[in-house]
Amino acid sequence: MSTALSPLLAPMLSSAAMRAVCDDAAYLQNMLNFEAALARAEAACGVIPAAAAGPIGVACRSESIDRAALAEAATRSGNLAIPLVKALTANVAKADAEAARYVHWGATSQDVIDTATMLTLRAGIDVLLAELDRAVAGFAKLARAHRNTAVVARTWLQHALPMPFGLKLAEYAAGLHRSRKRLQRLRKETLALQFGGAAGTLAALGDKGLAVAEQLAKELDLPLPEAPWHTHRDRIAEAASVFAIIAGTCGKIARDVSLMMQTDVAEAFEPAGVGRGGSSTMPHKRNPVAAASALGAATMAPNLAATIFAAQVQDHERSAGPWHAEWPTLPSLMLVTSGALAAIVDLAEGLEVDVARMRANLDATDGLIMAEAVAMALAEKIGKSDAHHLIEAASKTAVAEKKHLRDVLSADARVTAHLDAGAIAKLFEPMAYQGASQALIDRLLASLNEM
Amino acid sequence: MSTALSPLLAPMLSSAAMRAVCDDAAYLQNMLNFEAALARAEAACGVIPAAAAGPIGVACRSESIDRAALAEAATRSGNLAIPLVKALTANVAKADAEAARYVHWGATSQDVIDTATMLTLRAGIDVLLAELDRAVAGFAKLARAHRNTAVVARTWLQHALPMPFGLKLAEYAAGLHRSRKRLQRLRKETLALQFGGAAGTLAALGDKGLAVAEQLAKELDLPLPEAPWHTHRDRIAEAASVFAIIAGTCGKIARDVSLMMQTDVAEAFEPAGVGRGGSSTMPHKRNPVAAASALGAATMAPNLAATIFAAQVQDHERSAGPWHAEWPTLPSLMLVTSGALAAIVDLAEGLEVDVARMRANLDATDGLIMAEAVAMALAEKIGKSDAHHLIEAASKTAVAEKKHLRDVLSADARVTAHLDAGAIAKLFEPMAYQGASQALIDRLLASLNEM
Amino acid sequence: MSTALSPLLAPMLSSAAMRAVCDDAAYLQNMLNFEAALARAEAACGVIPAAAAGPIGVACRSESIDRAALAEAATRSGNLAIPLVKALTANVAKADAEAARYVHWGATSQDVIDTATMLTLRAGIDVLLAELDRAVAGFAKLARAHRNTAVVARTWLQHALPMPFGLKLAEYAAGLHRSRKRLQRLRKETLALQFGGAAGTLAALGDKGLAVAEQLAKELDLPLPEAPWHTHRDRIAEAASVFAIIAGTCGKIARDVSLMMQTDVAEAFEPAGVGRGGSSTMPHKRNPVAAASALGAATMAPNLAATIFAAQVQDHERSAGPWHAEWPTLPSLMLVTSGALAAIVDLAEGLEVDVARMRANLDATDGLIMAEAVAMALAEKIGKSDAHHLIEAASKTAVAEKKHLRDVLSADARVTAHLDAGAIAKLFEPMAYQGASQALIDRLLASLNEM
Amino acid sequence: MSTALSPLLAPMLSSAAMRAVCDDAAYLQNMLNFEAALARAEAACGVIPAAAAGPIGVACRSESIDRAALAEAATRSGNLAIPLVKALTANVAKADAEAARYVHWGATSQDVIDTATMLTLRAGIDVLLAELDRAVAGFAKLARAHRNTAVVARTWLQHALPMPFGLKLAEYAAGLHRSRKRLQRLRKETLALQFGGAAGTLAALGDKGLAVAEQLAKELDLPLPEAPWHTHRDRIAEAASVFAIIAGTCGKIARDVSLMMQTDVAEAFEPAGVGRGGSSTMPHKRNPVAAASALGAATMAPNLAATIFAAQVQDHERSAGPWHAEWPTLPSLMLVTSGALAAIVDLAEGLEVDVARMRANLDATDGLIMAEAVAMALAEKIGKSDAHHLIEAASKTAVAEKKHLRDVLSADARVTAHLDAGAIAKLFEPMAYQGASQALIDRLLASLNEM
Repeated sequence: MSTALSPLLAPMLSSAAMRAVCDDAAYLQNMLNFEAALARAEAACGVIPAAAAGPIGVACRSESIDRAALAEAATRSGNLAIPLVKALTANVAKADAEAARYVHWGATSQDVIDTATMLTLRAGIDVLLAELDRAVAGFAKLARAHRNTAVVARTWLQHALPMPFGLKLAEYAAGLHRSRKRLQRLRKETLALQFGGAAGTLAALGDKGLAVAEQLAKELDLPLPEAPWHTHRDRIAEAASVFAIIAGTCGKIARDVSLMMQTDVAEAFEPAGVGRGGSSTMPHKRNPVAAASALGAATMAPNLAATIFAAQVQDHERSAGPWHAEWPTLPSLMLVTSGALAAIVDLAEGLEVDVARMRANLDATDGLIMAEAVAMALAEKIGKSDAHHLIEAASKTAVAEKKHLRDVLSADARVTAHLDAGAIAKLFEPMAYQGASQALIDRLLASLNEM
Repeated sequence: MSTALSPLLAPMLSSAAMRAVCDDAAYLQNMLNFEAALARAEAACGVIPAAAAGPIGVACRSESIDRAALAEAATRSGNLAIPLVKALTANVAKADAEAARYVHWGATSQDVIDTATMLTLRAGIDVLLAELDRAVAGFAKLARAHRNTAVVARTWLQHALPMPFGLKLAEYAAGLHRSRKRLQRLRKETLALQFGGAAGTLAALGDKGLAVAEQLAKELDLPLPEAPWHTHRDRIAEAASVFAIIAGTCGKIARDVSLMMQTDVAEAFEPAGVGRGGSSTMPHKRNPVAAASALGAATMAPNLAATIFAAQVQDHERSAGPWHAEWPTLPSLMLVTSGALAAIVDLAEGLEVDVARMRANLDATDGLIMAEAVAMALAEKIGKSDAHHLIEAASKTAVAEKKHLRDVLSADARVTAHLDAGAIAKLFEPMAYQGASQALIDRLLASLNEM
Repeated sequence: MSTALSPLLAPMLSSAAMRAVCDDAAYLQNMLNFEAALARAEAACGVIPAAAAGPIGVACRSESIDRAALAEAATRSGNLAIPLVKALTANVAKADAEAARYVHWGATSQDVIDTATMLTLRAGIDVLLAELDRAVAGFAKLARAHRNTAVVARTWLQHALPMPFGLKLAEYAAGLHRSRKRLQRLRKETLALQFGGAAGTLAALGDKGLAVAEQLAKELDLPLPEAPWHTHRDRIAEAASVFAIIAGTCGKIARDVSLMMQTDVAEAFEPAGVGRGGSSTMPHKRNPVAAASALGAATMAPNLAATIFAAQVQDHERSAGPWHAEWPTLPSLMLVTSGALAAIVDLAEGLEVDVARMRANLDATDGLIMAEAVAMALAEKIGKSDAHHLIEAASKTAVAEKKHLRDVLSADARVTAHLDAGAIAKLFEPMAYQGASQALIDRLLASLNEM
Repeated sequence: MSTALSPLLAPMLSSAAMRAVCDDAAYLQNMLNFEAALARAEAACGVIPAAAAGPIGVACRSESIDRAALAEAATRSGNLAIPLVKALTANVAKADAEAARYVHWGATSQDVIDTATMLTLRAGIDVLLAELDRAVAGFAKLARAHRNTAVVARTWLQHALPMPFGLKLAEYAAGLHRSRKRLQRLRKETLALQFGGAAGTLAALGDKGLAVAEQLAKELDLPLPEAPWHTHRDRIAEAASVFAIIAGTCGKIARDVSLMMQTDVAEAFEPAGVGRGGSSTMPHKRNPVAAASALGAATMAPNLAATIFAAQVQDHERSAGPWHAEWPTLPSLMLVTSGALAAIVDLAEGLEVDVARMRANLDATDGLIMAEAVAMALAEKIGKSDAHHLIEAASKTAVAEKKHLRDVLSADARVTAHLDAGAIAKLFEPMAYQGASQALIDRLLASLNEM
C-alpha cells in the first residue's frame, strides 16, 4: 500500500498531503511503527525482555531500510513484511543481538501489513477531513452570498424553473458534509488493529495474546477488534466505499461547474490563474481544469472500490491474490479521491459567479420558464383551469411569434383585467417563484454543524 | 427499479422474499403509495381539497395499471412516472373528475421514483436483516458446538497451524453481524423521503412545501431530509456499498466452504438434499451448489455497486442517463445479495462437519504442523535457541525419512531427557496450541448482541 | 443466460429484438437445439441408435418444459442443464422409452449451457449488426447532408474552432462501423462449439468423441474449436468487451446530442414525437430521452463487462461461482447494449438540426472563435509575428469594448491597408477555416464500405 | 500515462520490462518523439522551414525536461502537453530562436498525448508478446512431457474423472496463444496515429494537413487512421480489453496452480527458490507467491478495463475528465497484466509436477472415479442397463464398507464371469478412459503455430 500515481501525473490527480500519506516511505514507517509498538507492548506484558524494546524501537526508522532491496525480496516472499522483518532484525542485531531475537515476536506478516494500512487509512482520512472542512465552509459561504441569486434550474440539461443559486451551493455543502460524517464514523468505529499471529489465534503468545493485543492497540491508538480479521475485509471495503462516495459527490459538483462554464452558458467559473485553463490561440477559452481532475477521479474511483469489494473473497486464514489486489488499489483510491476533493476545494473557495449572465439565461426562453409561476398566480383570479389554458395558449403564441410571454400576456385583456403592468412584471421575477428554497437553504446550512 | 433476474435464473441467484420486494408490481405499488400519501398529506395541509385524497387513494392499486402499456409509454417520456401519473389520473377521473385534477400535485417524476426506491430499499433491507439474523444465529450455534474442534488453519492455501473450527465460525457470525449493524444504521439514518417538485424548490406548493414534505414523510414513515436530493445520490451509493459488502462476506464464507468440500479436503459440507449437488455418473461428487450461488453473487455485486457509484455524477437538477443506470442495477444488486445470503443461511443452518477428517488432515504433514508448538514447549526446558535448532533438524529428518515428527523426537535423547512419551504426545495435541482462541470466540460471540 | 431486465424497464433500456433473443424461452430453446443436434450427430456417427434421434428431436421444444419447475430444480442442481435433461428425458420417454436412454449422451451440463450461450450470442450479434447498419447509414446520410454546415467544435466544453458538422457525424458513422467489423469478426472467429463431456475429454464417447464434435458443430453451424474450453472464457470475455465498446460509442454520441439539445445550445435535437420528452408545465422543454437511455446503458455496460472479465478466473475443469456470474450478466450486457444502440439509431435516422442556431452560436464570442484563422491569413501579408500580436491586441479590445472582432479589425488601418471589407468578412466565414475536413469526411465515409 | 505502481509494490506486481515501457521518462520521450517527428514531417511537406526540424529534433530528449516542474505546471494547464511544449520551445530557442517558433506547429495537446500513448501501447504489446512466447512455449513443452500423466479432473472442486495432465497444460498454452493473436492484431490494426489539431480539422495546416499526417504516420511507423479520433476511444478500449483478457487467463492458470499446490493436494508446485514462498516456523509450507501475484492482477484488471470503457463517453471534440481517467489507468492495467504474465511465465518454465501424488489422488475415492469407465466397459458384456445397476450397487457397497470398488467388483461373480483380475485392474487404469484427449492435445499444440 503506497503511492500509486506516477510523479508526472500525481499533482494533477491527487493532493500533496495525500501523496505524503501514501508514499512508500510513509507506509514503510507505519509498518515499522507497528514493529516498535509491538516490542513495547510485549515488553510491557513480559512476553519479551524489557531490554529488547528499546533497541528495536530505535531501529524502526524507514530511512534505515533499503527500499529497492526490499521490493525485490518481496517478489520471492510474496509480501513486504517478510523481508522487512529480516532487514529490521539485521539492523537491530548490529546494535543488540539479543534484542534482535524478539523482533516481530509472535506476529505474522499480515499483522504488520494490515495494521500499517489502518494507520495509513487514518492519516488519509485526516487529510480528507481537513479538505472537506474547507470545501464545506467554502460552499456554505457561497450559499449564503447567493441565496437570493436567481439561476436556471436545469433538468435533463433543459431549462426547468428558476431556483436560488444558493440552494444549489448549500446542497453541495451538505452533500460533502454527509461524507464528512461518514469519514468521522469510519475513523472512530471502523479502523481496527490487526494482530493475530500466523493463524489468527495468537498461539505463539501462549496465554498473553490478548493482553499484548490490548496494549498494542493502546500504543497505536487504534480500536481493538473482537478478534483478528485477517480474511474478513469488510472494514477495508467500508472505507473504500466512503472514498468512492466522496469522489462521486466531487464528480457531481465538477460536472455542474463544467456545464456552467460552457461558453454557451458562462454562469460560473473556476478561479482564474496565470497559465490556468487558457489557450493562446483561442483567447475566449477558459477550460475547466479543476473540474476535469475531479471528473477523472470520479471515473476511476468506482472501479477502484469495486476491486476492493471483489477482494473480500479471501481464502481461509490468509489469501493468495485478493489481498495483493488491495495493496496498490487502496492508495490509488485514496489519491484520486484526494485529487477530486482538492479540485472541489479550489472551486468552493474561488468560484467566480456571473450573476448577470445567470439572469440573462433565465430570460433565454422569453419568459416561458415562468409559465408555471404565472399560471399559478392567475389561477387565484380566474380559476385553475382557465388560467392553465390561457397560459398554454399564450406560450404557444410567444413561441410562434417569437415574443416574450410577458408581452403576450400584457396584450391580453383577460390578463390585464386582473393584473396591471407592474403585477405582470413581478410575476416574471424569478425569485418570486422559489417555493421553500429559503427554508431549505437554512435547513441545509444548519445541518453542517451536526457532527 | 424492479426485478432484474429472469424467472429461469432468479431462484438460483436470489431469495424469493427479495424477488417479492423487487418485482414490478411491488415497485409500482410503492410509486402509487407515494401518490396516495402525497394526496393525503396535501389534503391535510390544505393544498388540495380534502375530498380529493380519498378517490386518489382508492385508485392507487397497482393492479389497475396496464404495466405493458406503461413500460411502452416510458420509452417516450424517459421514465415511468409520467405515464403512471397519466394512467392514475385517468383512473381517478373515472370515479371523480375533480379529484383527478389533484393527482401528483406539485410533485415531479423523480419524487415518486426515488421515494418508491427508498420504500423498496427499506423492504429489501428488512429481508436481508431477517436472513442475517438466521445466518448469524446459525454460525453462532455452530461456533459454540465446535469451539473445541481442531481444524487446520490454512494460509496461502497451505496448512499453517491448528485452530479451533469454532473460531472460524464465530468470525463468520461476527462478520455478518457487522453488516447487520450497517443495515440497521442504513435503515434508520440513510433512507430519506424524496420530495422537491420540478426543480427541487417545491415552488408549486407556494409556502406550504415544507409542511407537505413533513406530513408526507410521516405518512410514509421515512426520514425527512434537509432538502430534496434529486441529483445527490450518496445515500443510494451508501446503500449499494453495504449490499456489496454483504455479498463479499458471503463470498468469503462460500469460498471457505467450497474449499473444505473439496474431495481432497472433505472437512465440511453443504447440507445434503434429494437431487442436490450430486451426479448420477460420478457417485462420489458432492457439488457446492449453495456456495457457487454465493460466489457468483460475490463476483457480480462489486461491479453492480460500481455502477451505482459511477451514477453519482448527475447533471444539475435532474440527470439524463446516470439515473437510468440505477434503475435496473440497484434491484439486481439487492437480488444477488439476497441470493448470496440465502446460500449462506443454508450453510449456517445445515453445515455438515466431519470432525474426524479435520483431525486426520491435521496429521497429513506428519506432525510438522505442530513444529512451532513443540519448539515453544521445549524452549522452556532447554532454551529457545537450542529448542529451535533441535526442532528444525528433527523436522528435516521427519521429511527426509518420511517419519512422523513425534517419532523422530521420541527417539531423541535430548528430548526424552525432559519429556516422557505422554508429554510428547500431548504436545502434538492440536488444541494444546490455540493461544487466545477461546477468549476470541467469546469476544466474537458476545459482539453479536450489540445492536 | 436469459432476460435480465424487468418488463417495466426493458422497453426503455433494450430493443425488442434483443429481448426476443435473450428471453427465457429463446435460451431454453437454444439448449434444446443443442440436445436435438447432439442426438442427430451421435446417430450419424453411430454412437446412439439412429432411431433415437427422431424422438429426441421432436421433444426438444421449449413449450414442453415447465419453466418454473425447472428454475426451482436448478437451485438444487446448481445449473439449468441437469433438470432440463431430466425433464427432456421424461418427455422423450413418453413417446419412446428406448430413445430416452440416449438423451444428452456423453455430454455434460456445461456443454449444453455454453453452446446455448454461443447460439444466443450469435443471434444477439445479428440483432446488433442490423441496428449498426441502420445507425451507420443514418449518420453517413446526415454527414453528407451537413458536410458544409458550420458548427462550433468544442473542447473542454468550450468553444474552440469551427468545424463542419458533417465531420462530426462522419466520425459517429465510422466509430460505429469499426464496431460493426468487430462484431463480424466475433461472429466468424470467436464463437465456438462447447462439447467436452464431464471432464473435457469426451471420454464417454470412446474413440468417437471428435467425430461427434465435428458433426455437432456442423449441425449448429458453429466453429469447432481445437478443444473444449469449459473454464477458458476468453471468447466470452472478448464478446463482452465488444458489447461494452459499442455501448461506449453510443454513450459518446448520446452525450454530444444531449449537450447540443441543451436549452442554452439548441443546435440539434432528438426526433420529436407525440408525448416524447416534453413537459406539460414547462412548455419549452425537450428532454433527451433517447440519449438518456444510451447514457444509462453506457454507465452500466463497463461494469457488466468487468464482471465477465472477473469471471474468467475459473477453477480447474468446471467452476463453482464465476460461471454463475456470467449467466445473468451477459444477457444484461447484451440488452443494455441493444438499448443504447436503438437510441442511437433513433438519433441517426431522425436527428433534427438547427443550422441557423449553429451559425448563431459560432458568433457568440463576437468573432473570437475566428481569431486563429484571421491571424493565419494576415500573416501572409504582414508576417507571422506581427499578425499574431495585432490579432491578440484586437481580441483584447473586442472583449473589453464588447465589440465584434471583425469590427475592431475593420477599424484598424494596419488591417485595412491589406484587406478590404469583403476580404475581412470572408475571413470570418467559419467554413473558410476547416483545414482537411472535407478530405477527412471523404475518408471516413469511404471506410464504411470496408467489411 | 506513466508508471502507476509504487517502487515498493512494482516488482511484485509487474515486470521490469513493462515498468521500463511505462515509466515517466519513457512516456515523456514518446511525447518528444512525436514532436520531433512532427517537425520532420512538416519540414518535408514545406509547412515549416526545413532548417527548423534539426534543432527541434535535437532538443527532444526527455533528460532536458524538468519533470517535477512539468508535473506541477500540468495542474494549471490540465494536461502535460501544454507545459511540455512550452519547455521544449524554450529549450529549442536557446539554440535556435527561429526554429523554436515551429515547435508543435498546428498540433494540439491531445495529438501529442494520444500518439505517445499509442507508442507506449506498442512497446507494451511487444513486452507482452515476448512473455507470451515464453509462456506458450513453456506450457507446450510441459504438455508434451505430461501427455500421458494421469491427473484428477475436478469440476466444482470435486473429483470428476481422470484426464491427462498434458491436456490441461495444452489448454493453458492455447488460451495464452489466442491472446497472442489478439495482441498481434491489435498491434497491426488497432494502434493509430492521433493528429488533428485544435478541433480535429487540421485547420492550422491549411491544405497540407493530410500530407503532414501521412508523413508523420510514416515517421512514427503508426497506421494512419481515416481521421483524428480525439474523443472516439474505441481503439483504446479494445487494447484495454485484450490486456484484461490476458490477465484473466493468467488468473485462471494461477488459480489452478494454487489449488494444486494446496497441502491437501500437492500435485504441482511453483518452482522453488532460495527464500521463496517458505516459512521458517512452518517448514511444510510452500506458498504460491507467483500465483498470488497473478491472482491479484486478475482481481484488478477487470476494473481497470472498466474505467477505460467508462471513459469512452467523452464530450464533443475534447473531453474534460474521462480522458484524464485513462492516463493513470491504462499503464496500471499494462503493469498488472505484465505482472500476471511474468508470474505465469515463471510457472510455465518451472512448474514442478508430482506425478506420483497425482496418481495417489486419483485413488483417493477408492476407485469411484473410475465407476463410469467400468460401467461403460461392462456394458459391452452384459448390456448397458445391467452394467449401470451393477456398478451403482457396487459403488454403494464400496462406500459403505470402505472398500476399493475394484475389490468389490472382483468379489462379484457377475463381473468375474466376464472379466478376469487383470482385465478388472486394467479398467481402473485412469488413462484407459481418456476419450479424445490425445487428439485434443495434438489439436491444441498444432494451433500454437497459427499466427
